[in-house]
Amino acid sequence: MNFNITSISNDELEGKLKHKIDNKTKPKGALGTLECIAKQIGLIQNTLEPSIQNPTMIVFAGDHGIAAKGEVNPFPQEVTSQMVFNFLQGGAAINTFCNLNTMNLSIVDAGVNFDFKDVEGLIDAKIDYGTKNYQEQPAMTPQQLHAAIERGSTIVKEHQSNDCNTIAFGEMGIGNTSAASLLMAYYTGIPIEDCIGAGTGLQEAAIQNKINILSKVYNSYSPKSAMEALATFGGFEIAMITGAILEAAQLKMTIIIDGFIVTAALLAAQAIHSKVIDYCIFAHNSGEQGHQKMLRFLDKVPLLNLGLRLGEGTGAAIALPIIQSAVSFLNQMASFEDAAVSDEVVKR
Amino acid sequence: MNFNITSISNDELEGKLKHKIDNKTKPKGALGTLECIAKQIGLIQNTLEPSIQNPTMIVFAGDHGIAAKGEVNPFPQEVTSQMVFNFLQGGAAINTFCNLNTMNLSIVDAGVNFDFKDVEGLIDAKIDYGTKNYQEQPAMTPQQLHAAIERGSTIVKEHQSNDCNTIAFGEMGIGNTSAASLLMAYYTGIPIEDCIGAGTGLQEAAIQNKINILSKVYNSYSPKSAMEALATFGGFEIAMITGAILEAAQLKMTIIIDGFIVTAALLAAQAIHSKVIDYCIFAHNSGEQGHQKMLRFLDKVPLLNLGLRLGEGTGAAIALPIIQSAVSFLNQMASFEDAAVSDEVVKR
Repeated sequence: MNFNITSISNDELEGKLKHKIDNKTKPKGALGTLECIAKQIGLIQNTLEPSIQNPTMIVFAGDHGIAAKGEVNPFPQEVTSQMVFNFLQGGAAINTFCNLNTMNLSIVDAGVNFDFKDVEGLIDAKIDYGTKNYQEQPAMTPQQLHAAIERGSTIVKEHQSNDCNTIAFGEMGIGNTSAASLLMAYYTGIPIEDCIGAGTGLQEAAIQNKINILSKVYNSYSPKSAMEALATFGGFEIAMITGAILEAAQLKMTIIIDGFIVTAALLAAQAIHSKVIDYCIFAHNSGEQGHQKMLRFLDKVPLLNLGLRLGEGTGAAIALPIIQSAVSFLNQMASFEDAAVSDEVVKR
Repeated sequence: MNFNITSISNDELEGKLKHKIDNKTKPKGALGTLECIAKQIGLIQNTLEPSIQNPTMIVFAGDHGIAAKGEVNPFPQEVTSQMVFNFLQGGAAINTFCNLNTMNLSIVDAGVNFDFKDVEGLIDAKIDYGTKNYQEQPAMTPQQLHAAIERGSTIVKEHQSNDCNTIAFGEMGIGNTSAASLLMAYYTGIPIEDCIGAGTGLQEAAIQNKINILSKVYNSYSPKSAMEALATFGGFEIAMITGAILEAAQLKMTIIIDGFIVTAALLAAQAIHSKVIDYCIFAHNSGEQGHQKMLRFLDKVPLLNLGLRLGEGTGAAIALPIIQSAVSFLNQMASFEDAAVSDEVVKR
């Protein structure tokens, strides 16, 4: 699994982007975070005139061995496949937000515990009918992990070859906040009990139970590499997103990072290739408590703070227009010279 | 100046909205702030199926007597009229964001110190060629204030009669952070020195000078009413926005509140009629330091926190898609029943 990912750092271009931004008809710095985003996307695309083309959301769905028992998840495992049908029928939150913001939407079966046969509109990348329960054995084999990363990578390549340069990932998988918590603990070094939250809506006592179960799981393994950790604790949808992120960075695409689960996949990708982070824009601060800690670990401030904790990529889809605002002002606003507006400060 | 503004509070409808939201295919509360916005707009429009129609941005421009001397503003007063031409030519930040988000844009001369004659596309509501300098006398007469409120109200009525139900206001006026600081001090009771910031980009020493000047101004008046304060310290663009906000609330429109200046106009509107706040959604937290304090005074959390400090209504225009997301999920998402998704929690 070799990815060739280079830093976007380029002092000369960055200076030119700053000059262009500072000459727009506005006080210096007045567009705040949008100015940083404009600069970042200019650097990613290596141009003073970046664009956002065919923005695309890919939602990966997968089931988790542990969820079959219902000890860590308030919703039953069947909800994963039911929600896949909801995505395909256009009824889920992610459908609504992608429609509204003109974002392409693809749904991928990464490993749901259901036989979808040839249902229309679903991309079949099934690795297996759910992962194994890591209470008993690693979630997946090394071969399955490689296959998942490969599939994630291939799906991104296809979109990029269709002129998509901006991509986001979403997920569906009952039990996947547990996998994300375990991965977070491994990649950040934060104690496992501080990585666990309410997921889709556990109450206090059930969260304590989840902490007890996952602490035991975490302490029963000692993964020797980023890849081994991903195989041990991950989900197929998470591993596929890791592969998708690595490929998107290799292809110099702008990557919009959603919430807790997708950021866990990014932590894995970053552990595999640190420069991947240069291509990432952080969409929002999830209501799942561990996500804030992940963002602090990565030293990143997200665009939105709306208390979303739904997954599916919803935070990334909602953040897209803000990212488009950044690119638009860079391309479309007049300079002081164009508009004959004085940029002189008053002499006193 | 009589506005008939009623509270949106309606327990029965609120219960029905909550029921509708809680039955969407997502964990309860998982859309965070979007759920609150959806409920608020449902209550404003008195329906379970609210919509956002012809969202419109009206930018009011006006000059300020004090700015002619250049003591409180880094940019010269001429920039107000230059920026009005920039708006009309489509080169400013607000043009970019309104285009991107399909928001109508109107530009109003509320009282710029320039004779625009009959320049195309500009709405002429000029009260005078800038306000008086409040270092010497009140900014405007009571008659001028009434005229400004009346014009703001009339302009909103016209938009509403063209099927606009969602409106935002922006402003342009060199020196208007000074007016907003004075108004903020009056309406909130916060000490004047804590209401003053960098405006379009003053340095440390210049901010101290601005504090000295405005403290002296503030202490030399004792307005006896909300209206008298607005006439004493306000700008024509600010007073017109106050009238526009009052009318929009009377007409039960959703009002997207921008940054420091527009929130100062809202503080005036709220002092005149407290229920106006029910119709307001707060777009963003401005980089101008006083704005956070205004929001705390109003006990409101804004949608965005992007360090914007540009004015023109840019924060409100950028926030529009988030508000549209809230209305969209309420109308378009499937319920658990529609989608045959289990909403049962796992028994244990």
